[in-house]
Amino acid sequence: MKVGILGATGYAGQELVRLLHRHEEVKELYLGSSSVAGEDYETVYPHWLGQNIGILQDENIPDMDVLFCALPHGLTAERTSTFLARGIKVIDLGADFRLNSAEIYEEWYKIKHPASELLKDAVYGLPELYREKIQGQSLIANPGCYPTATLLALVPLLRKQLLQTGYLIIDAKSGVSGAGRGVSLGTHYGEVNENFKAYGVASHRHTPEIEQELSRAAGLPLTVNFTPHLVPMTRGMLVTIYAKVSEGVQEEDLRSCWLDQYKEEEFIHLLPPGTWPQTKFSSGSNHAFLQLTLDKRTGNVVIVATIDNLLKGAAGQAVQNMNLAMGWPEAQGLKATALWP
Amino acid sequence: MKVGILGATGYAGQELVRLLHRHEEVKELYLGSSSVAGEDYETVYPHWLGQNIGILQDENIPDMDVLFCALPHGLTAERTSTFLARGIKVIDLGADFRLNSAEIYEEWYKIKHPASELLKDAVYGLPELYREKIQGQSLIANPGCYPTATLLALVPLLRKQLLQTGYLIIDAKSGVSGAGRGVSLGTHYGEVNENFKAYGVASHRHTPEIEQELSRAAGLPLTVNFTPHLVPMTRGMLVTIYAKVSEGVQEEDLRSCWLDQYKEEEFIHLLPPGTWPQTKFSSGSNHAFLQLTLDKRTGNVVIVATIDNLLKGAAGQAVQNMNLAMGWPEAQGLKATALWP
Amino acid sequence: MKVGILGATGYAGQELVRLLHRHEEVKELYLGSSSVAGEDYETVYPHWLGQNIGILQDENIPDMDVLFCALPHGLTAERTSTFLARGIKVIDLGADFRLNSAEIYEEWYKIKHPASELLKDAVYGLPELYREKIQGQSLIANPGCYPTATLLALVPLLRKQLLQTGYLIIDAKSGVSGAGRGVSLGTHYGEVNENFKAYGVASHRHTPEIEQELSRAAGLPLTVNFTPHLVPMTRGMLVTIYAKVSEGVQEEDLRSCWLDQYKEEEFIHLLPPGTWPQTKFSSGSNHAFLQLTLDKRTGNVVIVATIDNLLKGAAGQAVQNMNLAMGWPEAQGLKATALWP
Amino acid sequence: MKVGILGATGYAGQELVRLLHRHEEVKELYLGSSSVAGEDYETVYPHWLGQNIGILQDENIPDMDVLFCALPHGLTAERTSTFLARGIKVIDLGADFRLNSAEIYEEWYKIKHPASELLKDAVYGLPELYREKIQGQSLIANPGCYPTATLLALVPLLRKQLLQTGYLIIDAKSGVSGAGRGVSLGTHYGEVNENFKAYGVASHRHTPEIEQELSRAAGLPLTVNFTPHLVPMTRGMLVTIYAKVSEGVQEEDLRSCWLDQYKEEEFIHLLPPGTWPQTKFSSGSNHAFLQLTLDKRTGNVVIVATIDNLLKGAAGQAVQNMNLAMGWPEAQGLKATALWP
Repeated sequence: MKVGILGATGYAGQELVRLLHRHEEVKELYLGSSSVAGEDYETVYPHWLGQNIGILQDENIPDMDVLFCALPHGLTAERTSTFLARGIKVIDLGADFRLNSAEIYEEWYKIKHPASELLKDAVYGLPELYREKIQGQSLIANPGCYPTATLLALVPLLRKQLLQTGYLIIDAKSGVSGAGRGVSLGTHYGEVNENFKAYGVASHRHTPEIEQELSRAAGLPLTVNFTPHLVPMTRGMLVTIYAKVSEGVQEEDLRSCWLDQYKEEEFIHLLPPGTWPQTKFSSGSNHAFLQLTLDKRTGNVVIVATIDNLLKGAAGQAVQNMNLAMGWPEAQGLKATALWP
Repeated sequence: MKVGILGATGYAGQELVRLLHRHEEVKELYLGSSSVAGEDYETVYPHWLGQNIGILQDENIPDMDVLFCALPHGLTAERTSTFLARGIKVIDLGADFRLNSAEIYEEWYKIKHPASELLKDAVYGLPELYREKIQGQSLIANPGCYPTATLLALVPLLRKQLLQTGYLIIDAKSGVSGAGRGVSLGTHYGEVNENFKAYGVASHRHTPEIEQELSRAAGLPLTVNFTPHLVPMTRGMLVTIYAKVSEGVQEEDLRSCWLDQYKEEEFIHLLPPGTWPQTKFSSGSNHAFLQLTLDKRTGNVVIVATIDNLLKGAAGQAVQNMNLAMGWPEAQGLKATALWP
Repeated sequence: MKVGILGATGYAGQELVRLLHRHEEVKELYLGSSSVAGEDYETVYPHWLGQNIGILQDENIPDMDVLFCALPHGLTAERTSTFLARGIKVIDLGADFRLNSAEIYEEWYKIKHPASELLKDAVYGLPELYREKIQGQSLIANPGCYPTATLLALVPLLRKQLLQTGYLIIDAKSGVSGAGRGVSLGTHYGEVNENFKAYGVASHRHTPEIEQELSRAAGLPLTVNFTPHLVPMTRGMLVTIYAKVSEGVQEEDLRSCWLDQYKEEEFIHLLPPGTWPQTKFSSGSNHAFLQLTLDKRTGNVVIVATIDNLLKGAAGQAVQNMNLAMGWPEAQGLKATALWP
Repeated sequence: MKVGILGATGYAGQELVRLLHRHEEVKELYLGSSSVAGEDYETVYPHWLGQNIGILQDENIPDMDVLFCALPHGLTAERTSTFLARGIKVIDLGADFRLNSAEIYEEWYKIKHPASELLKDAVYGLPELYREKIQGQSLIANPGCYPTATLLALVPLLRKQLLQTGYLIIDAKSGVSGAGRGVSLGTHYGEVNENFKAYGVASHRHTPEIEQELSRAAGLPLTVNFTPHLVPMTRGMLVTIYAKVSEGVQEEDLRSCWLDQYKEEEFIHLLPPGTWPQTKFSSGSNHAFLQLTLDKRTGNVVIVATIDNLLKGAAGQAVQNMNLAMGWPEAQGLKATALWP
């Protein structure tokens, strides 16, 4: 089985290399990079020394079974139809195929969608919520990191009408690796360390993606307040969600709903009451952890979900989608538990 | 002028030493500690070497003008009446005099209030909101760190009825120094570093303090959802607040309200639209920074406020209160701007 | 194959759980803990939720093939002879069997050696330097973390007489996890974060261990200056070593010596000239990275070596030793490359 | 008194602003920046909001008393003679006037020295070692951060011939702010956090500066091994030094020598035996802390010195030099003790 990565030197790309290099079904790995084509992977990332990962390439993408695209938005969609025509399954870690509507894409991403005709063929690759649709698929939109954590928490509850939708507050926090490996003042150590801030307030591009999927779950259009924050740590993501429960709903109803949805899931963990998620529970793994409490004083449920933004929030979920698309065991290559401490 | 500190070796206590040591009006400093009485301060904190801070003492509190109490709750209230009787002004950095109601205190702090008869004499020491009441006072309850950041943001808006009170979501984040210098697994470097978590969900003791003051501002009893989180950094606190604006209220109305309240304030800064607070803006200073946006899609305002939890959230505000109580310039000894980077 | 861990909830113990849980030959895992016996492992470490690691136990150690002892010094040696008599191979991650001399042990560890008669049977478990001696052994002293990094760098060069021994300066730096999970002011986040310090100067207990093995390599008794430092990070260890090269020795001679020693080694990597080790190259893996340069201005070689203190410096090397002792492929269960970033 | 800063938005420049803004003698502050001229300082650094720091300027440097140059090497020397001719005292935080020899400058900095004729007029601005020479001076070379920490430790001992000079090992560690505010992969949070590395091994430009001053102290030419390392923290610098003591020298002789040199110094602190420096002791202050021990087993002394790289290692020392040059109290504007925690 031959697999490729476009954008193999970014943080998500490197995680894909790490996962795919040890995946039992992957025999050959194509490494694409437009910026450092021609270099040996171990020159870019010396921790791979001696493991023969390969030379980075730019042109002449060969035939292969699955291609992971970890590129800035717009670049993947331009080329997807040619990949599909060659029988290559495409898993896009970018945003090009996550939104059903080209119009909404253009509103938030500020470019014309390069391949809006393909949107109807793309499946939203969140396996625990859309497993059947993903199996065997050829064009998979890997969800954003913030949407992954948020949807795992909310979709089951909204499908069962356990929450009111008048206000949905999603206060999200991410480690710096989510911003990628590109250099900027915003990722400069001196500016980030011992610092904490909100960013993209009321304007982050994951907002319409979250709203699309929550609306689908609730069966009606809804909006959310989504505020991401930058945490002075490298990995990890945690979302804290506030919503009004529907009339008569008890905490136990919410827990039961989650349990029904996730009891067979290998990667989704419902913590015992009183134990709250920490990002480190997920760090280095594809696991997600959930907890909630119904605050009787206010009638709001408080939900916390955590994932590793580079794994369940990017590369890990992408490999999970590949496994589903190819018909392999879903957790193949994703067995690691968090690194602690 | 002679000043004392009970609990002088804790983090808040040490900050008080730093501020008071260079305060122009303070000529003598009494250092109280029950755990390391008899030791030289520079043995406990070698960065004070050669500055003659003094010997830590436990018993025989001498006569003095102002006494700062940075002790666990309950311990200050036990002794306050004797201090007051001796003509010593008391500024309590703990929780004993923040709540007006002994009943609510006992519900949340799980002990009988040791001096409930004094509650009516205590003033809540948030200078920008209650300046006149603090001036000349003898018993000042220094606000909690989370309440300080929250109330600076919300009280003016609630006083003017610009917000609805059906739901008030306060998602708060603090550096680890807020947990004090005591050792525990929860402050162990290996457990906190590269980690982020919520704690005290729907149960943190700052909740009734916030509700008391917000209810007072709104003129009606209200409840909040308050969720603190632990950030892997030493200093800094940031709160993100979500609320529904009142019918017809525009973003500009909210900004004007803040401006009216704070335009003369030395420590409260309204950032220009689009610039969002970062905890580092406040780090090492008594300054607070505020920002908001009205999300028209949801009708909720999103507010962010930041302070240094050990300064405006503890020792800095306490010194500000001392200045007010003694009739000195309010910013005396508090002129520092943040340390950057 | 049944394996056990004494001290299963410490940081090294938890890493052993992580490695052994996925080791192909390990079918059963005994988890020993004196402090939290009776608790489910996933209660202590919720990131293991749903993986059936097991219940922690204190008494009645069952029969098993290999027992890892991750205990404070002294506690393992007391019980080793009974384990050996039952046919259980013992791999000690503590210091009890590292020093050949009970006298030196007692001088540095300040207790009488509980089982000095076993010292002659113990092998020093640094596979790349003593592989043949380890194979099939029953009592293996897993090296200290600092000695591991130091010896990998220096032993080959001293064996070949490429260095003078008049002065050997080992300036070492470690992440905080090396201090274990016990709580103390020294591991309190507020005291460690944004801080860097030396500790155990001229007195650290790894000194005699390093000297024993370097003396053995050089064929003459020698002493070293060893200074450990605490780095504000969780994982990782790096040593910087300075030594005078022997008359006429060139940089190339030093590199060739390393290459001869390590060219077939899976875990030891000689970086290309000019690329210097970073602790992150090793983080989460059993890999070590080495580099050197001969400073012609001074005649001293500068050597840098890095490992993950919890893996090649503790649990990873212990599993490598188990593999050797049991005759399994040496890298079984240790294939992971570093987690980046 | 009017003072200016070229390079006012870099980290050292910003620290100068912080110190000079509150310096009693400084009435006017010129802020030079080639990259963001025209912007308000509080736009670049919002933590200065409302403090009227001023507008950044590029051209038309006005008359003033003292000009601080915090520019890349080469840029200051080009213009120094015109500043001096206008009667402006120049304090260069860069490297242009630190080395006495233009030849050595050109060898290490790889450019022709733009004003070698001025080298003889420049004084090396390390007040505790060259106070008399600095007083009243017009051209002051502010020392590098690593040299400052190293020279404070070694110069007194070498002047008194207490150390042999056959080998001098300087193993140095710095926080990331030393690399400045420019963006690069080397200061990217994801690459620096939870990581530790050596850099500039046997090639760092502070080497000839250290050797020049140590040779002067020893009265003979000597070389050193100097290895800087990058610590995952923002501020702070610590050097660990190894040297052979001269025949018959005892630890007490070394301590007495330091004491003679520093007992009247406000910023240099000799810690009590057994208490070792931590970078946090200095963080946010102009203070330096020293400790040593003579390791009798090896005959080498181990010395540790710590400073804040941006203060005693840059802006703080520059202000101290200004005070000396202008005849003001040397500690004017530099009274702060470290921020803890």
